Parts: sequence; structure tokens; C-alpha cells
Amino acid sequence: MQLNTMKDLFVDQLRDLYSAEDQLTRALPKMAQAATSSDLQSAFRDHLSETQKQKQRLEQIFTTLGMSPQGETCQAMEGLIKEGEEIIRTHADPQVKDAALIAAAQRVEHYEMAGYGTVRTFADELGYSDAKDLLQTTLDEEGSANKKLTSLAEGGLFSSGINQKAVAH
Amino acid sequence: MQLNTMKDLFVDQLRDLYSAEDQLTRALPKMAQAATSSDLQSAFRDHLSETQKQKQRLEQIFTTLGMSPQGETCQAMEGLIKEGEEIIRTHADPQVKDAALIAAAQRVEHYEMAGYGTVRTFADELGYSDAKDLLQTTLDEEGSANKKLTSLAEGGLFSSGINQKAVAH
Repeated sequence: MQLNTMKDLFVDQLRDLYSAEDQLTRALPKMAQAATSSDLQSAFRDHLSETQKQKQRLEQIFTTLGMSPQGETCQAMEGLIKEGEEIIRTHADPQVKDAALIAAAQRVEHYEMAGYGTVRTFADELGYSDAKDLLQTTLDEEGSANKKLTSLAEGGLFSSGINQKAVAH
Repeated sequence: MQLNTMKDLFVDQLRDLYSAEDQLTRALPKMAQAATSSDLQSAFRDHLSETQKQKQRLEQIFTTLGMSPQGETCQAMEGLIKEGEEIIRTHADPQVKDAALIAAAQRVEHYEMAGYGTVRTFADELGYSDAKDLLQTTLDEEGSANKKLTSLAEGGLFSSGINQKAVAH
């Protein structure tokens, strides 16, 4: 890897995110399967189809740049997914396991928010306005996915959340 | 690892964060050394002393719980730090390297925001109000550290940021 220009860094960061999304499309079905709450299962499945669209947005940007999305392995996402797999394997009370899966997934969402926030800003500064819009769309989706997980954990006004059920259990 | 109760999960998550902070105290001096901008060097050094205080807060919570903070290795932080080390080793234009270091550090901050957000909520739900306050203090610090990195990257009203300098370079 050589980082001579901001464009080099932009491409490197996009490839890191492409690898992250790719790893995530394989991890999310396992997380859905390990979840007990049907709302949490749906949240993971919905986020899987969102993740597939986010991968396609990155492919679209690479096509415009005339470059390949391959070439990086996102080591942070590897670590994040290892932690998720450890939870899946762990002997746990089902409601506590759901709370643990949410905790792992929120770390993933935050990783992606940081990553997309960075590349959205780089795209803007480099004058790639179409890429900026695509990356902003994904950034907004990651933020919403994270908020949804918070509301599943903490519950709404009329129903207690997964955490409270696990505490009371 | 067994997760029979929310307290088990709370302790497990705190140990993950303790390992993350511990790894970070060794990584931040290297990031400060690799940075060219003196503001960025200071930001990393300031965050090192904050990180040391954050570790102590976790130790304080473990003392109250009558437990040891050891026992987990945060695999996600291992991955995040590997990415930082890769940037440090990379042949790069100094200003582009600074932008890359900020990108790596913001991923770290987001990981910690997700982690502390989770344990702060768990502490609240488990009725550990002193722990909740300590964790909220750290969560606020991580949020501020992240905002500081954004402003270094994007610049203020009267000075262009590290990214713009790297683009113009």
C-alpha cells in the first residue's frame, strides 16, 4: 500500500469498507439464527438486505473510479465478527444472549458509522459529489440500524426491552 | 465464558473494554510519533492520559464488584490497532498519513463509544448507579475525543483542516 494522495487514501478506505460489508453479509445470517427475540431476528435479516445494497453502492463508486473494490481485508471487522461468533458459541441464557448479540452488533454499526463518515467527508473534499451522496445514504442507514438496536435493547414507552427482560429473568 | 445473567454480561463487557483500553495505552504513543501535525500529536498524547484515567475508572468498578478486570482479550481492538500499525508502516505523504491516522483513531473512538454506551445502559438497568456515572463520564470523553478528531480533519472556520491540506498538497 502506498498513500501518496488523498485519492489513494479514499480508495484504500473504500476497499476496507467493502471487505467489512462482505464479511458482514456472511455473519448476519448466523447472528439472526442465534437470536431468540423475533424482533431481533428481523432486525438482523433487514440489516442483511441493507448490507447487500451498501456493498452494491460501493461497487458503483468503484465502477465510476474505474477500479476494483477488492484488495483489502478489514482486520477490525474480522475482530468484531470473532467477538460475535464467540457470543454465538457461548452457553448463555437466551435473553442475555440477545442482549450480548445487540452489544456486538452495535460495535459493528459504530465501526461502519466511523468508516462511512470518513469516506463521505473525503468524497466531499475530493469533489466526488455522486460518491458523497451514495456514502451519505449508507451512513444514514447505519445510524438508523444502530438506533433500532438501541430501541430493541432499551424498549419503548409501552414495552420493556430485551435488556430489562434479561435483568428480570 | 458463561452468560447466565445480565451481571455476567456486564462483567464480560467491562473486561473487553479494559483490554481495549490497555491495548490503546500502548498504541497511542506510536500514533503520536507517526503524526506530523503538532495538533494531532497533542490530540493523541492528551487522549493517552484520558485513556489511563478511563482504565482506572474500570478498575474502580471492578474493586466495587470484588472482581478482577483481567480475563478477556478485546479482539476487535486488536484488529483496530493492526490497522493503525499498517498505516504507521505505510509509505505515505505526511499529510495523507495524518488523515489516515485520524480515520483509524475515529474507528477506535466509535468502538469505545459503542462499548461504553452499552455498559452504561447495563449499569443503569442493573442498579449500579456509581458505575453508571463513571461509565457516563468516560462515554462523554470518548465523544469529545471523536469530535476533536473531526475538527482536526475538517478544520475550523478560520483554518483549513488536515484533509484539505492533504487534498491541496
